[in-house]
Amino acid sequence: MPLLVMKFGGTSVANTDRIRRAAKRVGREVANGYDVIVIVSAMSGETNKLVGYVEETSQLYDAREYDAVVSSGEQVTAGLMALTLQEMDVPARSWQGWQVPLKTTNAHAAARIVEIPTENIMAKFGEGMKVAVVAGFQGIAPDGRVTTLGRGGSDTTAVAFAAAFEAERCDIYTDVDGVYTTDPRITSKARKLEKVAFEEMLELASLGAKVLQTRSVELAMRYNVRLRVLSSFEEQSDEAGTLICAEEDIVESKAVNGVAASREEAKMTVISVADRPGIAAAIFGPLSEAGVNVDMIVQNISEEGRTDMTFSCPINQVARAEKALNDVKEKGDLNFREIVADTDVAKISVVGIGMRSQSGVAAKMFQTLRDENINIKVIATSEIKISVLVDRKYTELAVQALHDAFELEKA
Amino acid sequence: MPLLVMKFGGTSVANTDRIRRAAKRVGREVANGYDVIVIVSAMSGETNKLVGYVEETSQLYDAREYDAVVSSGEQVTAGLMALTLQEMDVPARSWQGWQVPLKTTNAHAAARIVEIPTENIMAKFGEGMKVAVVAGFQGIAPDGRVTTLGRGGSDTTAVAFAAAFEAERCDIYTDVDGVYTTDPRITSKARKLEKVAFEEMLELASLGAKVLQTRSVELAMRYNVRLRVLSSFEEQSDEAGTLICAEEDIVESKAVNGVAASREEAKMTVISVADRPGIAAAIFGPLSEAGVNVDMIVQNISEEGRTDMTFSCPINQVARAEKALNDVKEKGDLNFREIVADTDVAKISVVGIGMRSQSGVAAKMFQTLRDENINIKVIATSEIKISVLVDRKYTELAVQALHDAFELEKA
Repeated sequence: MPLLVMKFGGTSVANTDRIRRAAKRVGREVANGYDVIVIVSAMSGETNKLVGYVEETSQLYDAREYDAVVSSGEQVTAGLMALTLQEMDVPARSWQGWQVPLKTTNAHAAARIVEIPTENIMAKFGEGMKVAVVAGFQGIAPDGRVTTLGRGGSDTTAVAFAAAFEAERCDIYTDVDGVYTTDPRITSKARKLEKVAFEEMLELASLGAKVLQTRSVELAMRYNVRLRVLSSFEEQSDEAGTLICAEEDIVESKAVNGVAASREEAKMTVISVADRPGIAAAIFGPLSEAGVNVDMIVQNISEEGRTDMTFSCPINQVARAEKALNDVKEKGDLNFREIVADTDVAKISVVGIGMRSQSGVAAKMFQTLRDENINIKVIATSEIKISVLVDRKYTELAVQALHDAFELEKA
Repeated sequence: MPLLVMKFGGTSVANTDRIRRAAKRVGREVANGYDVIVIVSAMSGETNKLVGYVEETSQLYDAREYDAVVSSGEQVTAGLMALTLQEMDVPARSWQGWQVPLKTTNAHAAARIVEIPTENIMAKFGEGMKVAVVAGFQGIAPDGRVTTLGRGGSDTTAVAFAAAFEAERCDIYTDVDGVYTTDPRITSKARKLEKVAFEEMLELASLGAKVLQTRSVELAMRYNVRLRVLSSFEEQSDEAGTLICAEEDIVESKAVNGVAASREEAKMTVISVADRPGIAAAIFGPLSEAGVNVDMIVQNISEEGRTDMTFSCPINQVARAEKALNDVKEKGDLNFREIVADTDVAKISVVGIGMRSQSGVAAKMFQTLRDENINIKVIATSEIKISVLVDRKYTELAVQALHDAFELEKA
């Protein structure tokens, strides 16, 4: 029997009516001849409420108790989804993470999946069950305590099940109807993509297109799970949504498939450091140890043996980065005049696997921004992405201009 | 190390502030030198909300899924209680039912406890943990699915833990400060009892004094667990609340210790049945099969070979009782003229273990009601209880008169 994984996010199971609507979609796939594994999130708002309780209780909480508390929301929706399916005469039952058992590391609150044995659930499919409803986000550690996979972890649960059970596809039902060429709130020309390559999706996800948890895309890429993102709020055909798949499955690709904007980056400049071998290590080693996620790095032209080093990091890590650098300065391991943080920037990126084979993308990007008189502060590139930092006020203008320049409104 | 079980009901853990207040009580017992097992209910209102979801979803629900859903509330408070204790530097951790594991029958939604292995928790006490916080109400069936013990099941969980771990005492913290001679809303003369015998408590609990789940009192009696009921909302001494204990622990007892009133009974009369051997079996056999809880039974004087049979049962079972009797009539197994249901009655009972050794209690009760011109419709007696059915409008008058007559306001 072919098998599908269907995952429903928090807004798709926000109340018993929505659960019923989601269950109807599941029932349709069962009627199409599939065995289905359904992964559910908690009702929207529920996990935030539970996290709120934990934070009211304790600042430096025991992550094992955090996990015991916050994993309860998924258990509720899993049971309700199974009941709803039964009510529709679809044989179904629920599983909690520990019942599968979905085995994880013991890194509580951010556990990684180690193994998903398929025997228990396959045995029930063998007995005539048509739908296994599994509580997302949760698992069990080697010591028998409940773990969670980090916020958004139900996406990862879904992809991991699709990989373990060799599902034909993993459908992620959410409150948007797919992946867009850019944020539709920035330009109405934004177009839904039919297909996106895993690598592109990874860049888009990490750049702020919050459709899918990044880890779930990584996992899908590793195990070549065909992922589909689609809306649970629209009636739609089987071709709906966006398919996230291997590069080989995309026949022809434009150079640029999407423009992403992130306002969550800060630009930091370490002014007047000695321009000597090992200086990069002296700066970025301590930052890494302090848990600062450095993204772009630029070293300025050297003058009189000294230089400035510029990098970007998430805005909420600025204080941590400053402390880490001042600490090494105090210890005498690094000398600089001052650190200047600019939090009034935005990162604009163009992404596309076609970039690998097509040249001139960077030139076209820079030219487009120049035509709009937008100054570029930092540049970084990868094989399939070019990112620039610009003044934050230009965010919308830059996205709109690039979207037009690369003709993303056209399929 | 001496061990205590402390159970906190839903109103005592209704939010993080109340959990903190409860945790302080636990901390005090730890400071007194106890290892403590804390049993928690769900936050008040939470279980009703979850049951509501299930009932919205399905009328004839799968009790296994019901259990998966409704057991989630206790998991939340257990984790939060453990975190709160840790925050107070009391070494604590939470357990869910399946982690203990609290083994039950597979009678979902009304499971009975089969076994509570003590090794896991005792091992942690051995490692320096001072408090084990256990989610009440829930357990695990032989097939590995979550079960619940029925509404109010956390009381039963607490007593079962006290028995399994041979606790010195089981303290039930609730929103009342003990067991009273009668409902304080009926007479301000109602007095809190210092001690009540298990047998008395069982009669009082089943008569509508809803302080404790009846099963928990039965269990405490069987294993001789010293149970204490006390308020979690008042500062109190170690002598506070009401101790529920074996008869031997109560030095001297008055004939009557309490007056209970229940408005949840109906009086049913089967009119003109043949007065022949086996007629009681012909009536009460089918009622029992239909799940009707018959309480009091009276057979009227026979006239011309026919008689009337009167019994009482819970008001919400009247329809079921009528159907059961009409069914046997249709099958020809029973002949009667009609069934008359009187739902406008109340059951008034006086309860006391002292009744066993003191005579004249019934006479005094009947005389007291006669003096108030209250007509008695049905009488039933047990070793330690006398109950009568009266018109419902006399409920308060009867309770007040009996409370005065037996001088229950005096210690």
